[in-house]
Amino acid sequence: MTSDKGLIIVLSGFSGAGKGTIMKHLLETHPDDYNLSISATTRGMRSGEKDGREYFFKTKEEFEAMIENNELLEHACFNGNYYGTPRAYVETLIERRKDVILEIEIQGALKVKEMYPDALLLFTMPPSANELQNRLVGRGTETEEVIKQRLEISCKESGYMNKYDYLIINDSLEKAVDQVHNIIQSEHFRVSRNQTIIAQMKEELKIFERSN
Amino acid sequence: MTSDKGLIIVLSGFSGAGKGTIMKHLLETHPDDYNLSISATTRGMRSGEKDGREYFFKTKEEFEAMIENNELLEHACFNGNYYGTPRAYVETLIERRKDVILEIEIQGALKVKEMYPDALLLFTMPPSANELQNRLVGRGTETEEVIKQRLEISCKESGYMNKYDYLIINDSLEKAVDQVHNIIQSEHFRVSRNQTIIAQMKEELKIFERSN
Repeated sequence: MTSDKGLIIVLSGFSGAGKGTIMKHLLETHPDDYNLSISATTRGMRSGEKDGREYFFKTKEEFEAMIENNELLEHACFNGNYYGTPRAYVETLIERRKDVILEIEIQGALKVKEMYPDALLLFTMPPSANELQNRLVGRGTETEEVIKQRLEISCKESGYMNKYDYLIINDSLEKAVDQVHNIIQSEHFRVSRNQTIIAQMKEELKIFERSN
Repeated sequence: MTSDKGLIIVLSGFSGAGKGTIMKHLLETHPDDYNLSISATTRGMRSGEKDGREYFFKTKEEFEAMIENNELLEHACFNGNYYGTPRAYVETLIERRKDVILEIEIQGALKVKEMYPDALLLFTMPPSANELQNRLVGRGTETEEVIKQRLEISCKESGYMNKYDYLIINDSLEKAVDQVHNIIQSEHFRVSRNQTIIAQMKEELKIFERSN
């Protein structure tokens, strides 16, 4: 690992594309390589959840103070609850050359990219729209109306796919996880992320500079 | 593999950085994934070489006709001999979604990038300038004067490293080969190289577009 800094990796994708599952397996198979950014939220804690593990649970006042103090990289409101990415955790990690993964939706992803142009944006999709519908139906947990809404949202979101850096086509879970891992590891060797070692090599080579 | 086209991969690097060895092992370990572009040259055929395997051997007149007819992607002159990359072979392969690797020096690499902005430029370097010097000396095949010249050239070439896409730090051969392979395979999933599948997904999702 040579990069100047750790990477901020944003994983988004259509609802039903399996990004949560990919993320879970990626962290299980490469526990030392990646850190998951934990979001702050004002939604109530559910049974089995723990503050600081699934989310940092905040009151509305606390959350709005975080917005006010510019302590969030991005935030959004869903179903009347705030969700956001605390900045300090992410910045501390990348300075220590650790990679951080954010699993956030598209608007948040674009905000992160604006603030950190080096952030790596990955877009998860199933092999086809049909397959996306099948997966949402197959879950058996959503009503027909909710599935219809999600597919409408996916249609709208597909307009933003070109703002991302890489596509993750989730056909086989294992392949998709490998793909995400290889993409991130390869990005570490990108010239723009290795200015320190390049400057050092140039400096070292100066002693061989033609002297006439 | 989803990309719209095959990739043009250019492997360059300092003399003594081991790009020839990396290339050889890459092609041996992944014979079905990559095609090596064979250069045309006017230099004489050496014993053990075969026309169309190491090079396409041409007369000066034939080579100059190729330049004239725009049949070369790039060409250069070394020690009074022409070397160049025939265009037709490369273009045929990428249209068939096959990846082609060009092992060429920096000026040629930059010409290829100008013509094909999607070409993937990889720069091979040893972990340090000291190591570069040690390797050139260790070969035992070059005079002190030639080694000095090569290091001078490396110093000059280091000014172009930022024109490349990725660094390949050749510390262990096996790791470097894996790294090259992973970088190329990851690049296949870059959004800009997958406009066909993105357009198709957008089209498929249109049936779910909100109708009001």
